[in-house]
Amino acid sequence: MTKLKLSLATAAMAALPGLASAEVVPGVNPSTDSVFIFNTLLFLIGGIIVFWMAAGFAMLEAGLVRSKNVTMQLTKNVSLFSLAAIFYWAIGYNLMYPLGTWNIEGVLSGVWGPGVLEEVGITADAADDYGYASTGSDFFFQLMFCAATASIVSGTLAERIKLWPFLIFTIVLTSVIYPLQASWKWGGGFLDAAGFLDFAGSTVVHSVGGWAALTGAIILGPRIGKYKDGRTVPMPGSNLALATLGTFILWMGWFGFNGGSQLAMGSVGDVADVSRIFSNTNAAAAGGAVAALILTQILFKKPDLTMILNGALAGLVSITAEPLTPSLGMATLIGAIGGVIVVFAVPMLDKLKIDDVVGAIPVHLMAGIWGTIAVCLSNYQSELNPDGTTLGIQLYGIIVVGIFTIVTSGVLWFILKATMGIRVSEEDEINGLDMAELGMEAYPEFKAG
Amino acid sequence: MTKLKLSLATAAMAALPGLASAEVVPGVNPSTDSVFIFNTLLFLIGGIIVFWMAAGFAMLEAGLVRSKNVTMQLTKNVSLFSLAAIFYWAIGYNLMYPLGTWNIEGVLSGVWGPGVLEEVGITADAADDYGYASTGSDFFFQLMFCAATASIVSGTLAERIKLWPFLIFTIVLTSVIYPLQASWKWGGGFLDAAGFLDFAGSTVVHSVGGWAALTGAIILGPRIGKYKDGRTVPMPGSNLALATLGTFILWMGWFGFNGGSQLAMGSVGDVADVSRIFSNTNAAAAGGAVAALILTQILFKKPDLTMILNGALAGLVSITAEPLTPSLGMATLIGAIGGVIVVFAVPMLDKLKIDDVVGAIPVHLMAGIWGTIAVCLSNYQSELNPDGTTLGIQLYGIIVVGIFTIVTSGVLWFILKATMGIRVSEEDEINGLDMAELGMEAYPEFKAG
Amino acid sequence: MTKLKLSLATAAMAALPGLASAEVVPGVNPSTDSVFIFNTLLFLIGGIIVFWMAAGFAMLEAGLVRSKNVTMQLTKNVSLFSLAAIFYWAIGYNLMYPLGTWNIEGVLSGVWGPGVLEEVGITADAADDYGYASTGSDFFFQLMFCAATASIVSGTLAERIKLWPFLIFTIVLTSVIYPLQASWKWGGGFLDAAGFLDFAGSTVVHSVGGWAALTGAIILGPRIGKYKDGRTVPMPGSNLALATLGTFILWMGWFGFNGGSQLAMGSVGDVADVSRIFSNTNAAAAGGAVAALILTQILFKKPDLTMILNGALAGLVSITAEPLTPSLGMATLIGAIGGVIVVFAVPMLDKLKIDDVVGAIPVHLMAGIWGTIAVCLSNYQSELNPDGTTLGIQLYGIIVVGIFTIVTSGVLWFILKATMGIRVSEEDEINGLDMAELGMEAYPEFKAG
Repeated sequence: MTKLKLSLATAAMAALPGLASAEVVPGVNPSTDSVFIFNTLLFLIGGIIVFWMAAGFAMLEAGLVRSKNVTMQLTKNVSLFSLAAIFYWAIGYNLMYPLGTWNIEGVLSGVWGPGVLEEVGITADAADDYGYASTGSDFFFQLMFCAATASIVSGTLAERIKLWPFLIFTIVLTSVIYPLQASWKWGGGFLDAAGFLDFAGSTVVHSVGGWAALTGAIILGPRIGKYKDGRTVPMPGSNLALATLGTFILWMGWFGFNGGSQLAMGSVGDVADVSRIFSNTNAAAAGGAVAALILTQILFKKPDLTMILNGALAGLVSITAEPLTPSLGMATLIGAIGGVIVVFAVPMLDKLKIDDVVGAIPVHLMAGIWGTIAVCLSNYQSELNPDGTTLGIQLYGIIVVGIFTIVTSGVLWFILKATMGIRVSEEDEINGLDMAELGMEAYPEFKAG
Repeated sequence: MTKLKLSLATAAMAALPGLASAEVVPGVNPSTDSVFIFNTLLFLIGGIIVFWMAAGFAMLEAGLVRSKNVTMQLTKNVSLFSLAAIFYWAIGYNLMYPLGTWNIEGVLSGVWGPGVLEEVGITADAADDYGYASTGSDFFFQLMFCAATASIVSGTLAERIKLWPFLIFTIVLTSVIYPLQASWKWGGGFLDAAGFLDFAGSTVVHSVGGWAALTGAIILGPRIGKYKDGRTVPMPGSNLALATLGTFILWMGWFGFNGGSQLAMGSVGDVADVSRIFSNTNAAAAGGAVAALILTQILFKKPDLTMILNGALAGLVSITAEPLTPSLGMATLIGAIGGVIVVFAVPMLDKLKIDDVVGAIPVHLMAGIWGTIAVCLSNYQSELNPDGTTLGIQLYGIIVVGIFTIVTSGVLWFILKATMGIRVSEEDEINGLDMAELGMEAYPEFKAG
Repeated sequence: MTKLKLSLATAAMAALPGLASAEVVPGVNPSTDSVFIFNTLLFLIGGIIVFWMAAGFAMLEAGLVRSKNVTMQLTKNVSLFSLAAIFYWAIGYNLMYPLGTWNIEGVLSGVWGPGVLEEVGITADAADDYGYASTGSDFFFQLMFCAATASIVSGTLAERIKLWPFLIFTIVLTSVIYPLQASWKWGGGFLDAAGFLDFAGSTVVHSVGGWAALTGAIILGPRIGKYKDGRTVPMPGSNLALATLGTFILWMGWFGFNGGSQLAMGSVGDVADVSRIFSNTNAAAAGGAVAALILTQILFKKPDLTMILNGALAGLVSITAEPLTPSLGMATLIGAIGGVIVVFAVPMLDKLKIDDVVGAIPVHLMAGIWGTIAVCLSNYQSELNPDGTTLGIQLYGIIVVGIFTIVTSGVLWFILKATMGIRVSEEDEINGLDMAELGMEAYPEFKAG
């Protein structure tokens, strides 16, 4: 079939066999059932590819740690996703979307069966939200966002944190911290009422993961030998092919992350919006990568692959708060600024002796803040656009969520430190967490150089 | 857009631009054409991500063998999928779904063109199953299940089996053994008539692969040096990052595997069921991983990543026989028991000196049996649920399929052993299959430790 | 649910809960809105998985170069995709699909906002192509094809080309060379008018990438030490697991590449055609892999994994010009011939001292030519099939596109060579591009053997 541009293709359509036979019902919208199916399908497809981001984080982080800590990083990533799946179901989801008033039965209602999934083989009238979408598909989709938040934390704290305190932190993060603050915006809470805009979660997901990681990094301290005599000692990742694969996986997953957050595709307007979002998301990632490529060439005379990868990711985080309203050019620019932020923020953190192994704080926290502010560029409140936002409202949301996450995760890290300890022994850290905590090497046959 | 919970979102929908403009036809179901498209789309999307499981098996197995056998493991996985694609088309598909009575023309009808795909550019009346779905999409989807069965075998027999006998086994498995037994349930045969339930194939796919692997492992014998003086010598996998990637790929693919097996999403009830299935499938995988994490911590004092990965996979296999009817809590539990089975079964097999390189027998056979039995937990026959099953019926299906697969694959392995030999020479095994059989190393530049 | 064959399933459908409740509107086609949504969805899903091919090319190439050049290969792949995204948007897309007459404002119209994406939250009447699909989704989909063309070039020229000249070539390729020639067929230009058939781009995408790579390889010259005393010195890839992963990713992406090129799935005929395309695409890949497996066994007595992988890819390229009209058997055969071409073409290129690091010229150029010719096998012009093609028309298209690409890319390579130089110094090539140009190793801890 000729790939004509759409405007040409429409004219040519009568000539196509499949279409010629179709007596399409003119001017009629999809049936209510079709809308329900389309919207549900968006959540399901979106959910699958946001799930896939869990693999992306795992590969990115496994590639950026040293080989003696790879098994541990993989173990953490598989475990944190699995725990998130259980605790977001048991507690988080119903905390995030309270059924009426908050009470313990409501919050834990997932545990005793109903409250999350519709019955098997429902008829249309029995659907929880007939005309909109299946509750189960929404749960599946939302779960993946909660898990992504937890994935962000593991990279920053790699190579020195103990497994179990980290997993306990994950449990609290996914059952309480993430859902509670997410309810303020996405559960229809006070940030939503205040007009705060965060389409797919630059603040609600990425900055929360970033703040939790930052708090943890400060309390945990840097890796042994990272900062020595005022210098930053490079500790290069063991497998840049894996790190690149992880970045591509995350990039792919982001189409579900942002596109799925349209929450509907059962109308012409919604599906065209999803198309805008896909295009803008891709443009922002490209902008971030190219900005980091050019900037590292200029600053260091040599392009830096890990900066380029993090630049792409920062571009993605930057566009996440508003992937719909910008033009493609603006989306590219918003992403590019994300890439610039990464190139400057990574050495800045090192100067502050905050040791972020994979660069998650620049990518998810700093670009997340930038992205949340950048909403004003394309969606500013005005008479013509009363649903837009203002810089004040956006900063209000950023700060409220930031303070909440810093305080709750800070308290939690301190409790964990005081009770079970969060850091492995010096000897274990030097030998690597893989042998010390797991007794298993990721690449037992490849000799370290 | 605000990610309101669905019950809130419905009320808010009038305010959304795209939806506001839609004069949705109230109370009307999708047109017959739309149902056809939706169902076909489920098969196509499901088929793509079940295809992707072929990559998952390849990465999992390549990561769990020693580096001297990685090229061979990759070669086997690419080749077995390709042969499955050809022989399931040429023979298997029409054997599994006989067109009326079985005869050689019917079975081989795929070879001479028709019998599998509809004509190009069909009109609605010319569709093989107007009102349901495209035959081609069903073929595409079913093919991937057949290939998955073959993938299971390759892992167990790794590091010592010759390439060609293994590929010949694959040809017979995918053209005869798998399709024949699958027809008993999914082709509307006697197991289906008996009321045996196996939604997506804990028995039909996973146990068949598992029985074929077990039979092969016994006939082939363990690797040299694996069992020595009553001890089991650990032979750690060469690349746990790849193994983890493979597990994530399989986990992702399972949404297509189980979700696609709903076989329809053109109604509110069907798409809501698919949503249930996605959520339950994920819950079971999480349950399996967490169970293995906790159990290996308790038993061995150190969490074991390969057990956690196999725990997740066992959770997935366990829920495959019935991913629809359990609640999320029950699905988590069913998966968790799968994870427990793996942790105990792996050393048990070693005690029996059955050498299963990647743990496919615990994961696919034992958890497959468990999952088939677990159908009774949520779908037991009763007056209210006459379409449910009983323990007796489920055991009947497990045993019939088991005996058939053991006998046919046993005979086949013996014939292969007697004629061309199935095991490489001692010298080749010690040097590695890569150099001996292929003359090519997977990692030629990485020195073995 | 019982996986009945479709013909059985239809009869059984009344018994299924979800379907029983559906009063499906008989004989009525989908509403115009539903058609719009279905078609848009095809572009979006197709676009995501063609995007994923960028990761496939990156992994394939990273696996096939030596470890000292892996970081560079990764850097090139991420960068070229990002640059393609920006320049195809800024220039290429509107050059490929001129809005009326060509003028600089029209071509660059993407840059100043409109011209590519529809407005936010359009109503049906405001859609650019109401009744067909969203413009944004088409842009997203087409972009991925342009980027794929650029990915092809990077593999051939690996291990010796400088980063920046390569990226400048990419910019010109994706903003001018690819879009201009693509407009001749897919923009409704003179090749389309002449009756040239190229469904998804054996010529328009793959041969263009291949010709650009060939021209570059000749101008750049072979790697140091590759051809010595009349012998070809093998330089094995550093990571065959990555190369295999890359192949599986590309295979997966091809379902979007070919299936999405149906450009519509809003009718029974279109979605059934997409099903045909998926099945044929898979069959051709399998055919190519098996042909290479058998042929390398016969010729070299040892199966060659890299040939098998390239055989699968050549099968995919071969079926790309016409994945719809062949039967499954013919598709398998067309793919198998692609696999045979690879096995013979790789040593032939070596004899000509054309150094193609990953085998992209046999796979994309030679199999692309074969696939374009093979259209005649199933879609030959006749009275019954007036829309078919002839060998003459197909050769005309192949030659026109070939000459154009050779001349434009040849001129460009020469300009780059004359101005900034395209080849790294001998010392840098021997030490590896990673340390020389990037100062960063991909696997810093794995000792080279």
